Amino acid sequence: MAPKLINGKEVAARVREDLVQEIARLKQLGHTPGLAVVLVGDDPASQVYVGAKVKACAELGLYSQEWRLPADTTQEKLVELIHQLNADERIHGILVQSPPPPHIDEAAVILNIDPRKDVDGFHPANVAKLVLEDPTGFVPCTPLGCMELLRAAGVETAGKHAVVVGRSMIVGKPMANLLVSKAANATVTIAHSRTKNLAEVCRSADILVAAVGRPCMLGADCIKPGAVVIDVGINRIPDSSRPRGYRIVGDVDFDAVQGLCSAITPVPGGVGPMTIAMLMANTVKACRQIVGA
Amino acid sequence: MAPKLINGKEVAARVREDLVQEIARLKQLGHTPGLAVVLVGDDPASQVYVGAKVKACAELGLYSQEWRLPADTTQEKLVELIHQLNADERIHGILVQSPPPPHIDEAAVILNIDPRKDVDGFHPANVAKLVLEDPTGFVPCTPLGCMELLRAAGVETAGKHAVVVGRSMIVGKPMANLLVSKAANATVTIAHSRTKNLAEVCRSADILVAAVGRPCMLGADCIKPGAVVIDVGINRIPDSSRPRGYRIVGDVDFDAVQGLCSAITPVPGGVGPMTIAMLMANTVKACRQIVGA
Repeated sequence: MAPKLINGKEVAARVREDLVQEIARLKQLGHTPGLAVVLVGDDPASQVYVGAKVKACAELGLYSQEWRLPADTTQEKLVELIHQLNADERIHGILVQSPPPPHIDEAAVILNIDPRKDVDGFHPANVAKLVLEDPTGFVPCTPLGCMELLRAAGVETAGKHAVVVGRSMIVGKPMANLLVSKAANATVTIAHSRTKNLAEVCRSADILVAAVGRPCMLGADCIKPGAVVIDVGINRIPDSSRPRGYRIVGDVDFDAVQGLCSAITPVPGGVGPMTIAMLMANTVKACRQIVGA
Repeated sequence: MAPKLINGKEVAARVREDLVQEIARLKQLGHTPGLAVVLVGDDPASQVYVGAKVKACAELGLYSQEWRLPADTTQEKLVELIHQLNADERIHGILVQSPPPPHIDEAAVILNIDPRKDVDGFHPANVAKLVLEDPTGFVPCTPLGCMELLRAAGVETAGKHAVVVGRSMIVGKPMANLLVSKAANATVTIAHSRTKNLAEVCRSADILVAAVGRPCMLGADCIKPGAVVIDVGINRIPDSSRPRGYRIVGDVDFDAVQGLCSAITPVPGGVGPMTIAMLMANTVKACRQIVGA
């Protein structure tokens, strides 16, 4: 039987619709949520992401600033800009597009962002709030979007066994923390590159979250029949039949597993569209918390 | 076959021996590590713990301050003392004995401790450093002691499946973070009160860490033959045959599991003795980092 496709475009659209009302409420109180996006250098993919984020702000009627700095911008200059944005009352969210050029110490830059404006959820203060289950913190957008997809698809997490493959600070670890929290109550396993018997571990999952960044790495032997699969991977593989010469695939071998799982996020169109929607949600939340509205 | 008993008293003694050399080195450079222990109120158990910590300092030749404040001490007064200790150059570690009286907001107090002196590892800055795998951070003493026991017992963690039962901020969560880090490389499952089929989950563990606080909760059905068991529980149960009228048992039913596991920490004498040894280690580390020696 074909699995239920968890449609990230639809869920993201619903998240944005809910935000429209909240933004209208904040505007009536005299507050327009504002996001500053900072890009250092001219990485083409980063330019696309930054453009999409600024466009999403415009579509929702949010205030935004787009800062494109030359690739040779110094650490000092970048931190100076962060401090300026921290002090700018029109700005409630600050995001430095990753990865910056190699001469920039990204962790040190993030430490300079006011944690109340850290809508990417990368500042240590927000990392800790996630572990401590403090709801005023900011959670990284991708795992936050994964949780929203599970919720929208009506997937019960309490008492279920969730396996998160990947232990990055951006996806794997925060995802595991979200799933094990008292709000979700899943039993959570974190697997990674050093895990032995990875397929067997994955096969014990009621909910499988793949965040490894390796195309089609997880196949049919990784799926318990009826499992829910959240595929965070966005991998380019060569495909001469496509105009661009490549296509995008996930970390899960969709064709191999679709007959086994009960629900799955397609790639593209699953987790991908959620990230910017959750960034908008975090920016609105930051505004609400900063102005106390 | 009887399992190997992981002797916490012996391992703790070895940790302290190693510290003696490091303390001598620091003293030669003109620095004596100093710990301040703060107790609010007169809880008998807390008084015993505080006394033991101060005594451990004396035995190692560390400088210590013991602050016993009345139960009606205000939040403001307590925070004032914390600030004083933050500024005291003789003090490198600050510990507020938990739990404080109910009128004290413990989290708010901890936020006031200089993270460089937070030898309990409860400050959000240190919670984040553990997740981010920053070795300059402080890890809570009990999970740190559990890792030391595994190391001392020659237990390989890489590629092994570790199951941590319990998701507290003091033991379960930091223990899971330690085990999943690149330094340990275990595949880690966090189970808790909402886990279904707890025995089955535990039975998949090569390394089982019990931190639930319920006497003898985990029995033979929770043990994979050959597993290593770390029992963090310290529970009093009535026992009229003992002079005190009670005895101390762990979260694991020792008698039931000892024929199955390959190694186990006894209770008492396993994890318990490690906590103060790791507090001493954290205090020496804090001194080393603060003075840059």
